[in-house]
Amino acid sequence: MKKFINDPYDVVDEMLEGFLDVHQKYVRKLDIARVVVRADAPVQGKVGIVSGGGSGHKPAFLGFVGRGILDAVAAGEIFTSPPPLACFEAAKAVDGGKGVLFLLGNYAGDVMNFQLAADMAKAAGLEVAQAISTDDVGSGPKEEAAKRRGVVGSFLCWKAAGARAAAGGSLEECKTAAEKVNANCRTLGVALSPCTVPAKGTPTFTLAEDEMEYAVGHHGEPGTAKIKMLTADEVTEKMTLEVLDDLPFQSGDEVAVLINGLGGTPHLELFICYRKVRQMLAEREIAIGRSYVGEFFTGLEMAGFSVTLLKLDDELKELLAAPADTPYYKML
Amino acid sequence: MKKFINDPYDVVDEMLEGFLDVHQKYVRKLDIARVVVRADAPVQGKVGIVSGGGSGHKPAFLGFVGRGILDAVAAGEIFTSPPPLACFEAAKAVDGGKGVLFLLGNYAGDVMNFQLAADMAKAAGLEVAQAISTDDVGSGPKEEAAKRRGVVGSFLCWKAAGARAAAGGSLEECKTAAEKVNANCRTLGVALSPCTVPAKGTPTFTLAEDEMEYAVGHHGEPGTAKIKMLTADEVTEKMTLEVLDDLPFQSGDEVAVLINGLGGTPHLELFICYRKVRQMLAEREIAIGRSYVGEFFTGLEMAGFSVTLLKLDDELKELLAAPADTPYYKML
Repeated sequence: MKKFINDPYDVVDEMLEGFLDVHQKYVRKLDIARVVVRADAPVQGKVGIVSGGGSGHKPAFLGFVGRGILDAVAAGEIFTSPPPLACFEAAKAVDGGKGVLFLLGNYAGDVMNFQLAADMAKAAGLEVAQAISTDDVGSGPKEEAAKRRGVVGSFLCWKAAGARAAAGGSLEECKTAAEKVNANCRTLGVALSPCTVPAKGTPTFTLAEDEMEYAVGHHGEPGTAKIKMLTADEVTEKMTLEVLDDLPFQSGDEVAVLINGLGGTPHLELFICYRKVRQMLAEREIAIGRSYVGEFFTGLEMAGFSVTLLKLDDELKELLAAPADTPYYKML
Repeated sequence: MKKFINDPYDVVDEMLEGFLDVHQKYVRKLDIARVVVRADAPVQGKVGIVSGGGSGHKPAFLGFVGRGILDAVAAGEIFTSPPPLACFEAAKAVDGGKGVLFLLGNYAGDVMNFQLAADMAKAAGLEVAQAISTDDVGSGPKEEAAKRRGVVGSFLCWKAAGARAAAGGSLEECKTAAEKVNANCRTLGVALSPCTVPAKGTPTFTLAEDEMEYAVGHHGEPGTAKIKMLTADEVTEKMTLEVLDDLPFQSGDEVAVLINGLGGTPHLELFICYRKVRQMLAEREIAIGRSYVGEFFTGLEMAGFSVTLLKLDDELKELLAAPADTPYYKML
């Protein structure tokens, strides 16, 4: 394991020390728990948007705390859910009198811990709701879509709900915005190499020199198949076809395209893959209303990327276009 | 070689196709050459700031074309200087009547090609000047500082010169701003793994499982030594001491700190290393006026990072704080 770390058990706290100093204009940490909140939290009269999950996904989750996206993030250990008490403290810290929305990915630990936090919050008189991302086509059949993992589509849920909250939306409206994104969003990922959790010290999977891990998760969960190396265009086509078929996305639709690097893949390669998606959408007369290429939700140093499509309507276009000012995402 | 590419000789053109589509609000490509310019170029009455160099360093150089930083970039093949004619076309395209400044790193090919372009530009009646970055402490002794490579300190030169140009500065003033940054800026890099140029297909160096490449360049040039693996704090301390001693930076100074990921290193690790630099500066009573942690100038998928310190004064602080709006760097 070659990493720039000290004690593997200190990586999250040491990372936080650096992150909080660099981005002190945007964020501060609660004394009571490993929770990062907007510097000006709570914002009175605004729904508080809270997310959280394991660390190691930078820029997710912390990088999107700020105006127009997330109000708070409860940060767990690497790839490990944050404890319920931290999620509860996050909710308390950002409650501005209009309720708090929990946005989480569909992982057993996160679902359980945020549910416990919601119970605590309700007992304390807070109004809370939650929405769960399930955009990963690679993690289960369409008939069991509710069991799928939430991956980088979560970022689009945060952006939409955060914009709705900033515009004065109610708790129910913010929840509806996130659920609308999730219902219209599909992702599929592929990897060329695994990642290594520092405290474990061994890679999450192994691949031969001529193999790719297809339908991989962003924690380095092995995918559905090891396939022979394909060119950028070949693998992008295979993934995009599967994403298109799943919703399905059809001629006349307008979509947002998100090409997410999983960590170790140069942006140069991401743009090459985006180019192929764009060609495929043009052939099918599907318009691109917004596009994102870069790293939004990584799995440590894993080399790989995912293709996400989100079917747009006027409401979602407006929410994605709304202003945001966070350490890693700024919409002027 | 595991990469998401098609024909290795098409990577730059295919990347550009994607990049230009995603960032069409900011940039457009000249028909006549592989040059990317601000969408609104030329800006009348403003000095044009031009850079360029090999591709494979994303977000550099292209990601910083926009308001407040670069007006144009001539993009070469991977790690290969752009041809003189492209640099000349870049200058013509952004000339707004106040002259054009070439900002380049100290590499033989770039220096030669930009000089030829400057000659062409002068022959065509354009006013041109140039400033060359030489911030890499690892590439030569202090006595021969002018022979050192330019690395990520270049980004700070672009930001300062771009801000000076946006504020109405003259060609001479823009050049002076870039040179002032370079004179006060020092960088040192380290790598855990090499990178592979697609058209070559083999790694730029090899390392054992327990080795680091110390004082590496951002093209994967081998460093000054292969050293045994150190912890994040140990290697950061070694690098930062060398950077501090070189200028030297002293008690009472105010600096900008830039921790640049070289490609394959998770941001989590970069923040851990930043934290150590911050501790060392605090011990020495050197204040941090601005800090940058992330990827600014990468070498494809190379795992590694660099430490940069820039000694600040009021002028440089103002230039770094000035507004910018580019695909990869936004200062609100």
